[in-house]
Parts: sequence; C-alpha cells; structure tokens
Amino acid sequence: MRLLVANPNTTQAVTDRIAATARAAASPGTEITAVTARTGPEYIATRAEAVLGGVATLEMLAEHADGMDAVVVAAFGDPGLGGARELLSIPVVGMAEAAMLTACMLGRRFAILTFAVALEPWYQECVDYNGLAGRCAGVFCLDEPFSAIINVAAEKAERILSLTERAIAAGADVCILGGAPLAGVAAEIADRVRVPLVDGVAAAVKQAEVLAALNPRKATAGTFRRPGAKSMIGISPALARLFAG
Amino acid sequence: MRLLVANPNTTQAVTDRIAATARAAASPGTEITAVTARTGPEYIATRAEAVLGGVATLEMLAEHADGMDAVVVAAFGDPGLGGARELLSIPVVGMAEAAMLTACMLGRRFAILTFAVALEPWYQECVDYNGLAGRCAGVFCLDEPFSAIINVAAEKAERILSLTERAIAAGADVCILGGAPLAGVAAEIADRVRVPLVDGVAAAVKQAEVLAALNPRKATAGTFRRPGAKSMIGISPALARLFAG
Amino acid sequence: MRLLVANPNTTQAVTDRIAATARAAASPGTEITAVTARTGPEYIATRAEAVLGGVATLEMLAEHADGMDAVVVAAFGDPGLGGARELLSIPVVGMAEAAMLTACMLGRRFAILTFAVALEPWYQECVDYNGLAGRCAGVFCLDEPFSAIINVAAEKAERILSLTERAIAAGADVCILGGAPLAGVAAEIADRVRVPLVDGVAAAVKQAEVLAALNPRKATAGTFRRPGAKSMIGISPALARLFAG
Amino acid sequence: MRLLVANPNTTQAVTDRIAATARAAASPGTEITAVTARTGPEYIATRAEAVLGGVATLEMLAEHADGMDAVVVAAFGDPGLGGARELLSIPVVGMAEAAMLTACMLGRRFAILTFAVALEPWYQECVDYNGLAGRCAGVFCLDEPFSAIINVAAEKAERILSLTERAIAAGADVCILGGAPLAGVAAEIADRVRVPLVDGVAAAVKQAEVLAALNPRKATAGTFRRPGAKSMIGISPALARLFAG
Amino acid sequence: MRLLVANPNTTQAVTDRIAATARAAASPGTEITAVTARTGPEYIATRAEAVLGGVATLEMLAEHADGMDAVVVAAFGDPGLGGARELLSIPVVGMAEAAMLTACMLGRRFAILTFAVALEPWYQECVDYNGLAGRCAGVFCLDEPFSAIINVAAEKAERILSLTERAIAAGADVCILGGAPLAGVAAEIADRVRVPLVDGVAAAVKQAEVLAALNPRKATAGTFRRPGAKSMIGISPALARLFAG
Amino acid sequence: MRLLVANPNTTQAVTDRIAATARAAASPGTEITAVTARTGPEYIATRAEAVLGGVATLEMLAEHADGMDAVVVAAFGDPGLGGARELLSIPVVGMAEAAMLTACMLGRRFAILTFAVALEPWYQECVDYNGLAGRCAGVFCLDEPFSAIINVAAEKAERILSLTERAIAAGADVCILGGAPLAGVAAEIADRVRVPLVDGVAAAVKQAEVLAALNPRKATAGTFRRPGAKSMIGISPALARLFAG
Repeated sequence: MRLLVANPNTTQAVTDRIAATARAAASPGTEITAVTARTGPEYIATRAEAVLGGVATLEMLAEHADGMDAVVVAAFGDPGLGGARELLSIPVVGMAEAAMLTACMLGRRFAILTFAVALEPWYQECVDYNGLAGRCAGVFCLDEPFSAIINVAAEKAERILSLTERAIAAGADVCILGGAPLAGVAAEIADRVRVPLVDGVAAAVKQAEVLAALNPRKATAGTFRRPGAKSMIGISPALARLFAG
Repeated sequence: MRLLVANPNTTQAVTDRIAATARAAASPGTEITAVTARTGPEYIATRAEAVLGGVATLEMLAEHADGMDAVVVAAFGDPGLGGARELLSIPVVGMAEAAMLTACMLGRRFAILTFAVALEPWYQECVDYNGLAGRCAGVFCLDEPFSAIINVAAEKAERILSLTERAIAAGADVCILGGAPLAGVAAEIADRVRVPLVDGVAAAVKQAEVLAALNPRKATAGTFRRPGAKSMIGISPALARLFAG
Repeated sequence: MRLLVANPNTTQAVTDRIAATARAAASPGTEITAVTARTGPEYIATRAEAVLGGVATLEMLAEHADGMDAVVVAAFGDPGLGGARELLSIPVVGMAEAAMLTACMLGRRFAILTFAVALEPWYQECVDYNGLAGRCAGVFCLDEPFSAIINVAAEKAERILSLTERAIAAGADVCILGGAPLAGVAAEIADRVRVPLVDGVAAAVKQAEVLAALNPRKATAGTFRRPGAKSMIGISPALARLFAG
Repeated sequence: MRLLVANPNTTQAVTDRIAATARAAASPGTEITAVTARTGPEYIATRAEAVLGGVATLEMLAEHADGMDAVVVAAFGDPGLGGARELLSIPVVGMAEAAMLTACMLGRRFAILTFAVALEPWYQECVDYNGLAGRCAGVFCLDEPFSAIINVAAEKAERILSLTERAIAAGADVCILGGAPLAGVAAEIADRVRVPLVDGVAAAVKQAEVLAALNPRKATAGTFRRPGAKSMIGISPALARLFAG
Repeated sequence: MRLLVANPNTTQAVTDRIAATARAAASPGTEITAVTARTGPEYIATRAEAVLGGVATLEMLAEHADGMDAVVVAAFGDPGLGGARELLSIPVVGMAEAAMLTACMLGRRFAILTFAVALEPWYQECVDYNGLAGRCAGVFCLDEPFSAIINVAAEKAERILSLTERAIAAGADVCILGGAPLAGVAAEIADRVRVPLVDGVAAAVKQAEVLAALNPRKATAGTFRRPGAKSMIGISPALARLFAG
Repeated sequence: MRLLVANPNTTQAVTDRIAATARAAASPGTEITAVTARTGPEYIATRAEAVLGGVATLEMLAEHADGMDAVVVAAFGDPGLGGARELLSIPVVGMAEAAMLTACMLGRRFAILTFAVALEPWYQECVDYNGLAGRCAGVFCLDEPFSAIINVAAEKAERILSLTERAIAAGADVCILGGAPLAGVAAEIADRVRVPLVDGVAAAVKQAEVLAALNPRKATAGTFRRPGAKSMIGISPALARLFAG
C-alpha cells in the first residue's frame, strides 16, 4: 500500500519528523511518501495561514497523488481537506479529523493539546467543522516561547505532560497531541499520562490504511462527487490537470 | 494480532456470516475469534432486547477476551460497549460506532440502512449517543417481511440498493449497512451504489486493528477508568472475575 | 393506585430507604410495593454496573408488575427504562428522568448532586440521553469516602449542603439529589438550601401517580410499541413471559 | 389543595371548558378556581397577542393567587410564565410546559397538534424556549376555518384524528393536543389514536398538583429569585402589589 | 429617513441618553424620534418586568410608528420585538438582536457586558432566543450597587473595563455593552479595550438604517405575516388600531 | 466612505454586475471599488474551488485594501473571510455572512436560494460555520442548465420565483438570493415574492457601511488579533506584505 503524506507547512525538517512518525505507525507493506509544501508559512497557526495551506495541499496532491492508495493531509486543522476529497478518487484523510475520530473510540470526550495559543482558534473551528464539539473537552495550549518550530518536540514534551492533567480535570478521557511539530511526542510520554494519548500523525496513517483497505468507490452522487469542469486561470498546470479530472 | 468478535445475538449462523466478513476484511496476520451470545434473542432489534444484549456482551468478553489484542462488539447498536470499555484493558470497539466514524472520513453526512423498521429507534439512539446526529442524514429501513434472520442478506440485497437512492436524496454522502445479518452485503452491491458503502463488520475489524496497533494504555483517570470493586450477587463466575478486575 | 418501585441495586437497606421516602411522598390511596434486584452490584455507579442493572430492572418488572398501575425504576440513571417502556402496558418512569423533568418546572437550569465522583459519567450520559443537557448546570459530586452505602445519607447530608452552593454558583436554579442512597435527604436539608431541592424518589413517585391517573393507552405505533416476538434462549421464565407479551 | 387556573384568553366559554377539563383531571381534594383574562384577544394565536397575554396572566395572578397552592397558566404557549415564576412564592406551571414534560415520560419524541396554522410559530418558539426541540417531532396544525373559537372542539375532534397519523409518520411517540379550546378533546378520541394522547389542561393540573405536593421553597438564589423592588408607573394596584412583593 | 427609537423603560433621562447616542450614530439625513414607555418599571431587569415592557413597546409603536421608516426597540432583551415585527409593515429591530448580529461580523464569539447581575437571566434567554448561544462567550455582569439608574454610565464606565478582560479570558473576540443605561459608554472606553466594543444603541440605529434602506416588503406568508383580526377587549384605542391593521 | 468589493471569481462580467448592484445599494457618499480575482475558476461552486477563492481573496485585499474603510468579500460562501479578518485592520464582511445576519432581523428562519445544485454543500457548510443552522430553513437550488454564468440572472429570475414558494412551504420567513451571478435579481422580483427578499451584495454593502461607520478598533486580543510574523516562501510580494503587517 502506498500512502502520500502531504505536509502543508514549508519546513522540511517538520516533514522529516512527520515521515519518521508515519513510518513507525505504518503497517508492514505500507510505503510512506512524504512531501513538503512549496508555498506558504514555515508552519500554519492561523486562519489566514490555513488559506495558504489549503492551496499548498491541493498543489502537492496534484503533483504526487498519482499511483497512491490514499492521502494524509498532515497539518492539524486539515487545510484543503474538503476540496481534496472532492477532487481525488482515492481516500483523503486529515490529521485532525483522523485523530479526533480515533479518539472517539477511546473515550467519551477528547482534548486537543498543542504548543502555542495561536493555534487554538483554528483547531477549535476544526472541531466545530467536524461536528464534534459535543465530544471535545477543550483545546489546551502551552503559552510560552520556543526557540524554533523544529525544536518544539524536544523542548516541550515535558510541558505537554502538565497539559494532560489540565485536560483530564476538564473532563477529557483521551488526549490528542495536535500540531505536526509534535509528531512522535506521544510515544515518548504516553506511559506517564493517565489517559490514552493519540498522536495525530500515527492516527492519520492508520486511518488512511483503513480507508485504502476498504477501497470505497469514488462518489458520483452526494456532496463529494467531482466538481464539474470550469474555466480556470492563473493556476499551475498540475492544479489545472487535477481540477480538469 | 488477535481480535475477539463478539456477537450479542444468539444465532450461530449470523456469527458465521460475521466471522466470514471479518476475516475477509482483516489484515494478514490478524486472527479472528468469533463467539455467539448464549442468552437473549435470536437478533436484537429493540431497546428491550438490547438490555439483554448488553449483559450477553459482558459475558462473552468475560469468557473470551483474555489474550486478545482488541474486541469488536458485533451488533449494530453496540450493546454493552461503554461498560466493556470501562472493564477491559484492551481496546473495545462497537460495530455501529466504528462504521459511523469511518463513514465520517468518506463524506459529510452518512445514512444508516437496515432491513427492518423495528431497528430504527435503537439505531437512532445509538447515533445520538455518539453525538453524531449532525453527521447523520437518517436511518432508512426496509419495511417488508423476511423468511428468517439468516436469509436476510440473500433476500434483501437488491432491495437495499433502492434504499441507497432514498438516502442519497436525503443528503447522504456515504451509506452504512447496519445490522449484523447484512454483513458482507456491501461488497456484493457496492459497485452499483453511487456513494461509498460501509460494511459495519468490516469497518469494526479495521478500527479494532487500528486501536490494537496504537496500543493505548488503560485509563486510570477519566470516565473509562476501571470501576472500583463492589459486592456483587447473582452473576456468573466469569462476570464476577471481570468486574473484580 | 398501586405503584411498583423497583430498586435495580441489590442492597435491601437502600430499598427500605427508598420505600420510606416513596410512602412519604405518595398521595393518600397510593400503595407502594418496593422490590430489590436479585442480581448485580450493591449499588450501581458506572456504565458497566448499569448494564447489569438494566436486566435486573426487567427481571423485577417481569415478576412484580402485574396488577400495578405504574412502575418507578428507582436508580438514578434509569437502567433498563427504555426497554421496560417498550414491554409494559402501564406507565414506567425513571427516577432521573422524573427528577429532571420535575426540576424543569422549578427553574431554568437544574444541577444534579450526588455522593461519589464515580457516578458522574453515568448521570451525565443520562442527562444527554434525555436531551436535557441545555437545561443542566452540571453534575456535582462529593469526592470523599463513606463507610457503607447505607450510611451515605446519614454521613453526607451536611456535605451535600456545600455542593448546593457550588451548583448555584454554576447557574443552577434548582438542585436534584441523585442516587437512591440519598432518598429522603432533601427533606432534611431543604430549608437550608437557597433554591428548590428535588428528591429523586419523591419526584418519581409523584410522576408515576400523574401517569397512572392520566392512564395513557399502550402505543401500537411509534417507537414504544411492543417488540415483535422473537426466539429467546437462556433467560428466566418470568423474563420470557414478559418478552412474549 | 387549591389550584388557580388562569386563562390568558378573554373568552369565558373557553375558561368554562378549561375548568371542566381541569376538574375532571384533578385529584379528590383538589379545588379548581378558574379565571378569565380581562384584557386582550378572544384567543391568543400569535407572538403579538401573546405579549398581551403575558400581562393578562400577571394581572390574574395578582388578583387571585393569594391562598392558592399552585397556579396553572392555561394557554398553550405559556404567556408570562417566566415572570410569574419570578414573582410568586407558590409553584406556577404552564400548560405547554407541563404537557411537553409529561409527554417526555411517554415517548422519545412528542408532536403538538392544534386547530389553526396561525398558532404554529408561537408553539414552536415555546418548544425551543423549553430546550425541547430535540424531543419534538413537529407542530401539526389543521388549516381550515372554524365557526367560532368555542366551537373548535366540537367541530374539529374528528379532523384532529387525521393529524395524529401525520404526526406518527413524522416520528411521534406521543401526541399533545395544544390550545385551550381543545381542552377535553383528548378524552373523546384517545381510544382511536395509536399512541398516547396528552391533554394540555389535564397535564398541567396534574403537574401543578405534583409541585404543590412537593412544596418547594421559594428560591432566594438563582434566576427565579424575586426581582428587587423598582419604581413602577401606570400599572394596576394589584399588579403593583405583586411586583412590590 | 425617520427612525423611531422606543425605550420600553419609563425613565425619561435614560431615553435622553439613548437619543443622544442614537443621534451620534445616525447617518446624515436620519431623523431620530425617541419616546419613553408610559407604563412599567424605571428600568427592565427581569422576565417579569420584561412582560410589562413588551406591552409598553407595542403601545409606543401604536402611537408613534406612523410615518416612520423603521423602529428600534431600545431595551437590551428586546421586549415585544416578535409581536412588533408581526404587526408593523416597516422594519423593527431590537437593540440586543442588532448588537449581537453586528458583533458576529467582528469576531467569532461575543460577550455581553452589563451593570447588574439581575439582568443576566433575561439577557441569556435573549441570546438563546436568537439561536446565538454558540456565538456567545458569556454574559458578564457587575455585582455592585449604583446610586440611580441614570448614574450608571458615569459611575461604572471604568468598572466595565475590567469586565472586558474577564470576557476576553473567556474567549470573547468582541464585547457588547448591553443595557440602555450604558448607551454611549462604549465610545468613552473603546480605545482602552483590546477587542472591538459594540454599543447596543449605536448598532441598533445602524441596523435600522440598513433595513429601512433595503426596504423589504411586509411578509404575507411565513411566521411574520400579520395576525388575523380578533375580538379584543380592555386595550387602548391605539393598540386596538394597531392590532386591527 | 470607500468600500472595496472583491470578487473571488475570475469573471469580470460578474464583477460588473456585482458593482452595479453594490452602487445601487450604497449610501450617498459611499464609493465602491470592485475588483476581480486573477486566479481561479470562472465562478466558485465547490469546496475545492473555494480553496482557490480563499487565496484569491487575500491577493485582492493585499493589492487593493489600502485606503479603504471596509471590505466586502463578494462570493456567497465567503472564501478567505476569516483569514482576511485576522490580517486587516479595517472591517471585512462576507456576502453570505452579511445576508444571513441581515435576514435574521427580518424573520425567524431564512432560506438561501441559488441557481445550481453544485453550490448547495458549500453554502450549507457556510451556514454551519456561522452557527446559524438553527435559523436556516434550507438551501434551495435550481437543478437545470444555464447558457453561461453571466446569463444566469437573465435566464433564471422567473425560475427563482418558484423556489421562493418551496422555501416558504419549508418554513422560511425570508429568502436570500445567494451567488454573485444573481446580484440584482432580488430587486426585479421582490414584489412578486410573499416574504422579504435579501440580495447578498446589497446586504453586504450595507453591513460594510455599518461596520465602517462604527469604526471598531483592530483587536489585539481574541482570535482575530493579527497573526505573528512567520517565514513565508513562494507567495506574491503583495501577499507577503499583507502577512508581514
């Protein structure tokens, strides 16, 4: 099975971290191809940056999805996910979506934990968009500086531990580590957390494997049927081909 | 990986059908053990029957869960699921829960299709319990007799096709076949349905594999920590051991 | 009027407490028959224990409901209530349901107060199941040991008082004392609480009287019509008769 | 026990109908005093008319509530209910509120049936105000003329029967007859309806009896504590006394 | 353009304050006519007082709406708004409604800030009535005495500042100053508040201008069509004319 | 007052139509500058196309917002709105958002009417995103071909009339014409529609005027404070300046 893991952020070192976590989670026989956005911010934290990330996602899929069995959109917040699901014939899963739905099988209410308060609104809107506000005990964020985005995992793993206790006190049965820069951190600290801990990248890879294995047909009805062809201007040839179908 | 698939209905032939579908869906290396309830109705269709099914689920898990990596509660409606999740240290997933959460990655709104109107209230309450009413386009039921519960799949596959069109007209992006007696039917008709079709048993097996692979710790906090020990009377020795922990 | 008050817990002394509170609340001419579960835990506190309580409820009704005018399921959380309502031709009311609906006529938002944190998830799920989350200001629990379940009322009445102030601060207009072991406590402390206080047993008895007096017909349509007959195995003769109708 | 049944409409003949139904529903020993609004429309059907009804309710309570044990606001839609509950020290219950909460103990979803489409928005807002939209299968209205408001019961009883089938098809487990002019109709047709039928007046009387029997204290905290005294102009002496406390 | 600004409170000095704020907010060419209720409390703070305010609103509109282009109901909580919208052929906007809808264009979640805890339940019910609970971060109230209602603005402006920080901490993107006695305060303190601040009177005037400019037709269908004529007693001639249409 | 009206579609003729409607709706003294996206589809109809539209919106604002008093995002569905609101210091309003919030002051429930079924999912998600599903009676779409996007208004005005009756039957108090190609159609047919009709462009222009007049400060707290600076690659110089602040 071949999975495309597309990082809508433009930091290659974060993609490397994602790829390592994805490969650790993948089943034997699953091949991971990880790609990095070529436009946009070093990491996406806000609605404005997610606008850029949405196009970056579609660009990556336009260039790399051929021959894949499923795709992971590897930024928590899932930029461009709905559009990608319309356009592609293979399953597409978002990191936030996959983490939340997986968490729903491990507890009544999940919490999302991340490394910067700037991410809270975008994550909360993602919870709402998925219709899962009733299952969410809150988004809990560290509010302190970090030296660089790629150092977040190393610098903040211990601090994330304290967030888990705040989340549990707020009613969480399970905690999700959101934010691609935190990929892999769950495995390091899980045995010191009192509830199950979900790694967004690992959950997304497993769910992409599920969808690829179930091999659903591309919808020709419903809201994820392919959009009709339209005249387009000013977009890349790859994107134009993707939209043309 | 070893999965226990516990059928809370008392019809062995339905268990056989579930087991065949489970094995077809399982990854290489996944071993399926399928067991049948020893008490209760031939198939569960109503709230009253689900009360019996809840205990039957716990009884089966008490007897067969040792040495397993995860458990599937294989009746759509998930009788006893919450209790099982409290008591066991390994992941437990319900067939309805797994099917709905999987469907959420394939579309905005899912429909549940089944073979008898008697099942509608129980299924609808299950949707509500999971907090997924906002993602559900409806529960659609055939309203016509069948010769015997084990013949439902053979007799009704074509009729289920017509339900998919009703569901699509009502806004469904994806259809779930609910009801263990329909296990395996999705594979037979999927290429004639205009949206992705989810088999409850297949989805549950795949999700149980995901959870077993992620290997989450047993919660010691939150609402799925183990219940404290209590004095119990009138229950089977196996159940007593399960509750004693 | 004859009311059956069925305690799904197996502690006779709690039943005695329930019965005394029920008789104090009953109208002249109402005769209370109180029975105790013969299987399950000394008291129900969790989802897993409530699975056992659901069957215990149906068993008690199977044996004792004949000749009654209405039934009270006397554990807060209402185990087996939906099933009982399907099977019986007389009204059935749950203690939690009755207390919450009664409280809705005394204020905008109610709080549920109880004696142990273990009960919180089950009670919260009961609020949600009744569609009353928007009317609920929270479930407030003591978090401290008690010597034995039957001593809870004597030991904790004063401590419950402090919970009422927490509930009022959280927006409660009315407080419900949940948990059968607290039956009768409301009457002792009501004059020291600043908002109306609802005793679950008293509310349930009064609502059972209402329903018996209104004497509604047994539904032959809708989701509480009687389930169709099914082949059953491994259940008690009384239960078999109840299901057979 | 003494109950005040206050009809916020100005048609005495409707009050007579309400009073007869109330007395038929009341327990032995309950004395019903029925009064009629002295200002406003012959019957309330719209939001604008309900504004008048709200004041009429408070006026009637100001004049007649002394010495009563509880009050029924006897127009479906409950004009002035919240205000009355703030001002009075005895329980106040609305006809719509009581009917809906009673119906919740007889089924999963209730329908409200009435005699004129003009009433639909007001009733729907009342459902929403009570936070019970999730329990309501719809408001179903006859759309045909009637000779006079007092003749509605006689002219429309048979036509209401056909509405019950529409409501059942829409998912209702129980039907409520809303609208004071329909008081007493439920008893006439209940044996021909396939689900339980709730008479708004009867339900309100029984619930007022419940609240009077439970004898809750007047809140001194929460949102139904008495309003502080304020300077008032242009209101009747009775109303001024009621507000002055 | 001519706007009627109707103050349902009976304090002329508050009307003067409202009128000054309204004129400051109005576009060139907009003429403001401000009127004061002739019956009811000095200021409306509770559900009971709002019942009086609803009739006062209709009375003022009956006397003064002729020749106007739109109407503002100038008490936060919008007493009588729905009824006024049914009866009048010109647009009617409520101060709370306008402030909340305007705030929705300035942020994800708004907070309502006011000068007395007595107002909280009425304001919260108004949020709920508008279906905007999901957009509301809370109602925040000062809990301290004031010398007289007309002095509130002068005495409490600084104290309101501290409430804005509480609201921001609770998730507010924008703050609304609710309560007619606070009209004009927003302009005084806005530059010291970290999020946009909405003055209820200013927002209502601007929205009334919008609606008057759009000049929508009076509905002859839907729930705001005019009520049919009914026999009315005991109401003022002006009100009788308004209802007669 | 200067308003920028940014059309995220790439069809200049649609921009011309929008501009004409905007100028007709604008107050004296309001100057409208209308610009057209330089990248993306001829018109946006789906989630995938909206991803492109989001970036096109930010590009247009980056180039043209300087010196403006407020901005209108002139595609129903509001692509890029949240991001734009974070980045700009002047008010930004979306056409769908403005139309829905305006409609809320004209009725209890609004319907959205448009010219193609392809638009339904995107519009529905926009309703949900705004938290207004409870105020929405549905999205109603023509399901028939049109010769070219710029001819939609001329070809479909009469057909839209029939949709208004379907919307009214479904409970709509007010109808919104969604979709920039329908700009101006409301004015042509409003006198034949039985409920108020809202033109998206006109509503957005009026609301932009409101916000510009209220002149709210740029948030420095809450979720619409400006994003912190980040390293960006592969974006236009104008966009880079916009993000740099």
